[in-house]
Amino acid sequence: MEKIAVIGCGLIGQGWTAVFAQAGFNVAMYDASSDAAKRALKAMEPRISDLAEFNLVETDEVPQILGRISVAGNLEEALDGAVYVQENGPEDVGIKKEITGSLDAIAAPSVPIGSSTSGISASRYCEGIAGRHRCLVVHPINPPHLIPAVEIVPTPWTDQNIVSRVNELMLQCRRETIVLNEEIDGFIVNRLQGALLEEAFKLVGSGIVSATDLDKAICDGLGLRWSFMGPMQTIHLNAPDGVDDYVARYGKMYRGFGIGSYETVDWAKIANEKLVAELSQKTPVAEIPEAQIDRDRKLMVLLRHKATQSKRDCP
Amino acid sequence: MEKIAVIGCGLIGQGWTAVFAQAGFNVAMYDASSDAAKRALKAMEPRISDLAEFNLVETDEVPQILGRISVAGNLEEALDGAVYVQENGPEDVGIKKEITGSLDAIAAPSVPIGSSTSGISASRYCEGIAGRHRCLVVHPINPPHLIPAVEIVPTPWTDQNIVSRVNELMLQCRRETIVLNEEIDGFIVNRLQGALLEEAFKLVGSGIVSATDLDKAICDGLGLRWSFMGPMQTIHLNAPDGVDDYVARYGKMYRGFGIGSYETVDWAKIANEKLVAELSQKTPVAEIPEAQIDRDRKLMVLLRHKATQSKRDCP
Repeated sequence: MEKIAVIGCGLIGQGWTAVFAQAGFNVAMYDASSDAAKRALKAMEPRISDLAEFNLVETDEVPQILGRISVAGNLEEALDGAVYVQENGPEDVGIKKEITGSLDAIAAPSVPIGSSTSGISASRYCEGIAGRHRCLVVHPINPPHLIPAVEIVPTPWTDQNIVSRVNELMLQCRRETIVLNEEIDGFIVNRLQGALLEEAFKLVGSGIVSATDLDKAICDGLGLRWSFMGPMQTIHLNAPDGVDDYVARYGKMYRGFGIGSYETVDWAKIANEKLVAELSQKTPVAEIPEAQIDRDRKLMVLLRHKATQSKRDCP
Repeated sequence: MEKIAVIGCGLIGQGWTAVFAQAGFNVAMYDASSDAAKRALKAMEPRISDLAEFNLVETDEVPQILGRISVAGNLEEALDGAVYVQENGPEDVGIKKEITGSLDAIAAPSVPIGSSTSGISASRYCEGIAGRHRCLVVHPINPPHLIPAVEIVPTPWTDQNIVSRVNELMLQCRRETIVLNEEIDGFIVNRLQGALLEEAFKLVGSGIVSATDLDKAICDGLGLRWSFMGPMQTIHLNAPDGVDDYVARYGKMYRGFGIGSYETVDWAKIANEKLVAELSQKTPVAEIPEAQIDRDRKLMVLLRHKATQSKRDCP
């Protein structure tokens, strides 16, 4: 049974611990405050029991999963024999530099050191660290044990081999990995969320719509499809001839109401050069009608599922 | 049993017909091409049967629902006795002007005339029409009978009374209404989608990430929460003290990676002046911890639901 070290035991560290222990890894939790680590260990019990209550793990697995989790008294003990290190320290470049330096000094060579940071590109804190080739961002969405997406963001110095191994390990933990080819601030998830929020603040701020009604545009509208199909696949299925056809039909409409500009981001060029090949590989144009039927069936199943939920969250 | 006229029998007209007939209205379908209307009537049968197959209506309701749907031979017949008109003509200002003029000349006074247009503000085609006070956009998301969100967009001349009646009627049809206080091109749904797509095209176009991996950021990430909770409620629950606390903690981070600008849209000001009051009414700050637990339970139920779906759409 391989071992993973989780450094920093706040909510994110606890979520990662649940992910790794569920996948069969032994997990050593460590926190600079030993009280925090002990509290975190205690918090794992209801967290794992909840997963069983909602049929995400078998009830008899609960004690096994909890049995794989321990608290380490110091960094050396936490890292001893670990095949991967997940760091969840404070969002501060100086602190990240210090923690990562310590981890690099102690962890066995070639063990990847992933950071949960949601805002700091790893190059900003690991440039001066001897083992910078094994440092990278491995960013979960909160709560990490419930949202499968994980962003893997290598620095310019990160070994390709390290990236591949972290990707494999995350897949083994049933995560869905988003692998970036280069660093960009905000990565993908928060950039997409930020772009949507900017427009949302603008619309509510101008008094055109209430926050309550705007929320319905997502949770009773776009969010239904997006819970099982990404935005690119969505538009690929929303025109008879696929994504380039969608851009030809609707690109001008979006520009017409002031979204983006042809100069900065040329949708048609990007569709032709990148999207058509990639999206048609999964869903060739000839199979779009069938994929639309399948999408609508999934929507019906989701609607039925939502109807069985007693309390409504959508405003 | 009240009657609704559906003018234009393409996929959108058919979806609306399913919505209205399910809610107990008699529906008269009309299309300038009588062949199109007859084909549409035939297409309603599998559409309604599908709803029964997925337990969205009772099986014995199917013949009743279908029994409420008929094809009208001409506009006069379609509009005779109708309490509401839903127009689904081509996306062309000239054609909308002509169709809406005809509808206004025939329909009984004070019957609202809603258009399904996704891109044309109603003021652009109804200014010169005598009954412009009863014209407005009533925009569904495709497919209309599966996605509950409907945007209601009055023109500067639309009677408030007409807006209220259309809103009531849509609620009666179990739609979730987004009521705009004034016209804006693209309304809400497509503006939010466009903002997210612009960022998505930029990221894929620059080679930072594949379309496949970008899609996972939504369908394995943000889209899970968004299928039952809008983006504003999402951020309200993502900071201990609610939405203004979220903006104080993370607003700078979004600006830091180049999303929007303080000058054009001031998130903090909008949060303080509008969002705090509105979002706290639904979820007071003291109830946020409980709401977070509820959100995580909903996420677990959704994950379980997704796990039971055989074929995976997320890339």
